[in-house]
Amino acid sequence: MRENYRKLRVAVLGGGTVGAQVARRLLDNADELGSRSGAGLELIGVAVRDVSARRSVSLPKKLLTDDPHSLIVGADIVVELMGGLEPARTLILEALSSGADVITANKALLAEHGPELFDAAAKVGAQLYYEAAVAAAIPIIRPLRDSLAGDHVTKIMGIVNGTTNYILDEMDTLGLGFEEALAAATELGYAEADPTADIEGYDAAQKASILSSLAFHTAVPLSDVHREGITGVSAAQIEAAKRSGHVIKLLAICERRIDASTGTEGVSTRVHPTLIPRSHPFAAARGANNAVYVEAEAAGPLMFYGAGAGGPETASAVLGDIVSAARRHVVGGPGVGESTHADLPVVDPGLVPTRYQISLTVTDQPGVLATIASIFSEAGVSVETLSQSTPHDEAGAAQTATLVIQTHQASEADLSQTVEKLASSPVVHQVAGVVRVEG
Amino acid sequence: MRENYRKLRVAVLGGGTVGAQVARRLLDNADELGSRSGAGLELIGVAVRDVSARRSVSLPKKLLTDDPHSLIVGADIVVELMGGLEPARTLILEALSSGADVITANKALLAEHGPELFDAAAKVGAQLYYEAAVAAAIPIIRPLRDSLAGDHVTKIMGIVNGTTNYILDEMDTLGLGFEEALAAATELGYAEADPTADIEGYDAAQKASILSSLAFHTAVPLSDVHREGITGVSAAQIEAAKRSGHVIKLLAICERRIDASTGTEGVSTRVHPTLIPRSHPFAAARGANNAVYVEAEAAGPLMFYGAGAGGPETASAVLGDIVSAARRHVVGGPGVGESTHADLPVVDPGLVPTRYQISLTVTDQPGVLATIASIFSEAGVSVETLSQSTPHDEAGAAQTATLVIQTHQASEADLSQTVEKLASSPVVHQVAGVVRVEG
Repeated sequence: MRENYRKLRVAVLGGGTVGAQVARRLLDNADELGSRSGAGLELIGVAVRDVSARRSVSLPKKLLTDDPHSLIVGADIVVELMGGLEPARTLILEALSSGADVITANKALLAEHGPELFDAAAKVGAQLYYEAAVAAAIPIIRPLRDSLAGDHVTKIMGIVNGTTNYILDEMDTLGLGFEEALAAATELGYAEADPTADIEGYDAAQKASILSSLAFHTAVPLSDVHREGITGVSAAQIEAAKRSGHVIKLLAICERRIDASTGTEGVSTRVHPTLIPRSHPFAAARGANNAVYVEAEAAGPLMFYGAGAGGPETASAVLGDIVSAARRHVVGGPGVGESTHADLPVVDPGLVPTRYQISLTVTDQPGVLATIASIFSEAGVSVETLSQSTPHDEAGAAQTATLVIQTHQASEADLSQTVEKLASSPVVHQVAGVVRVEG
Repeated sequence: MRENYRKLRVAVLGGGTVGAQVARRLLDNADELGSRSGAGLELIGVAVRDVSARRSVSLPKKLLTDDPHSLIVGADIVVELMGGLEPARTLILEALSSGADVITANKALLAEHGPELFDAAAKVGAQLYYEAAVAAAIPIIRPLRDSLAGDHVTKIMGIVNGTTNYILDEMDTLGLGFEEALAAATELGYAEADPTADIEGYDAAQKASILSSLAFHTAVPLSDVHREGITGVSAAQIEAAKRSGHVIKLLAICERRIDASTGTEGVSTRVHPTLIPRSHPFAAARGANNAVYVEAEAAGPLMFYGAGAGGPETASAVLGDIVSAARRHVVGGPGVGESTHADLPVVDPGLVPTRYQISLTVTDQPGVLATIASIFSEAGVSVETLSQSTPHDEAGAAQTATLVIQTHQASEADLSQTVEKLASSPVVHQVAGVVRVEG
């Protein structure tokens, strides 16, 4: 224990699963955490909406309050676990401007108002910690912020939303349709009553915004993240992916890319269902687990894997940040600000070339392959592989075959043009699916 | 850029592969690293043994010196990349006592003299960084030290030596014997001319000592690490492992265990060839790659994966530490010391129960299985699985069969007793191999 031993006052805002877990562990492990911090940690209170509500983890009544402002006043460290934009934003600004360090797991708030919060912290020399905001206990913020601070990160790909990974995994494993898999996920508590934020990719897009900003030293607001959810992924697409040795995952992809229109380097941040080979390490991220792949110039490829959600897991990341904040208080001095000096431009997602897999139902007759091939070549989209299923009879119609075509890198504009032409071709019955390919 | 912008003077000790890479990158990326640090970084010199020697990466002549002491005098940050115990130890102590922060990749030195160095840093409020000492650019020191600082780490398993992983992988993939695989590794530069430190497990044991000390807040010197190398691993054992669905890896294992003799919690740190199931994520760590698995109470299981060696990879980790040190200098105040407050006892490796796989050649006659089974049960070792190969003729001898037996958890003492009895049994021709099992 250090000689300059002192008590640091910790306020927790939010008494939900994570908030209650954090408070409980602060109480139970006060001595151990104090030894690791070099300062005593005193939980001064937990701000909740309703002090009489039942909680998953029991907390002493006298620590509960419905007045967060009163807690912030006397706190050295404020832990915001309420979620949502307001009143979280106002309370965090209040805490930072009082000089307290703030810890948050609020990805929505960081993606929407990150720069405002970081500026508020810098102004008074306080620090904002947010390891829990992405992939729960998997350390990814600190590795990007500190361990790779001397390297040049070129790409991040992440499975950062457990709910969608669970749903896609169930579709892949059991052959379920999207609706069935969603129902199963809801029943098991993997999906919320209103699953929009997860299945439409908003949650993953928030995390992509945070990772991109951090890795590329550039503010990447949520509005600069291209987002597609998984509601359009069909059992047939999953089946086609399987046949071609792939699996579909919802990926957050953050990349340095050259903007084709300007020739300058920019940042491309996007969330979309993506085909990856079954041999890719990501294919092993099953169920609600998360995985993050980071590629840096000198470090090469790195992979981080673990549980990306859950009360104890998120609490672990929050407590790590509390110890970091406490150590910083012992040392004194201003916090280390977020750096956005690179300030790279956003690359138009339509101009970022990616590979695609396209599934078509076509008339089974001679010359069809040539017709399809010429549509691709006319649009300037190069075909990498093509596979044709054995012909089958469509109910009450002509005999058809299924074509699965994988392209080399193509821009979204060229690809859209191709898909449009395919859809209007008389030999094409249906464009059954278009999915991007990585790995 | 911050207003309190200043130039920090960086000295690099050692001009080998990593030292030259670090120096080159400091020169080439000075502006970028400065922006990330909030302080300018000025490379004041590189101390080398012979200033006229040829280097893999070219450096300005005027930066080279064979007098490390002269560099240390004026440095804010000293980067030790000479390796070996001396003069590295003396120079680091000299740098720390002058108040400079020190960055080192020297695992041997940390495993032998870690506490002495950490004490010297604490005395003057300087900080010692060592992310590059374990698994190169894979962030593992910072995640353990900071991200998991609020959690309770229970176990670490690591493939932390690329050379032995390469050799074992070649044996597994190509069916090579140990000597052949070692020769191939030497030819390709994966093994050094004197491979002792790698193949006898000394390098992995040094890393295990560092990980165990950090994770369990307890000084675990190298002498407390149980160490077995891979020189005894035979092609036949690899083959037997394959048949039972396993692969052999050299693992560094750091665990909290209850000492059976005292009933108290202690630390068990060991390095030995280990069977793991082919379905285990570690089985995918091929070639010279590294992987580290961490299990913590709240965070659950986490996996870190990437290149565990190499000039650019190690330089990446060192540069991350340089930026951290520079940010700390901008902030001011004393460094955060290493915590050894838990001070857990060492658990006698003979008392740590593990599972074992034992391969035997036995006479093929009725009653042999019963004889073998009774030897196990008499020693109190419980058999989990047993498989018998089809009988084969030994050259000029009786017909024999191969038995592969996997046990439940057993202490080393009980296991040794069993092996001794097996070896002296008239029905056993040979105890072909004994390997521990994890996962």
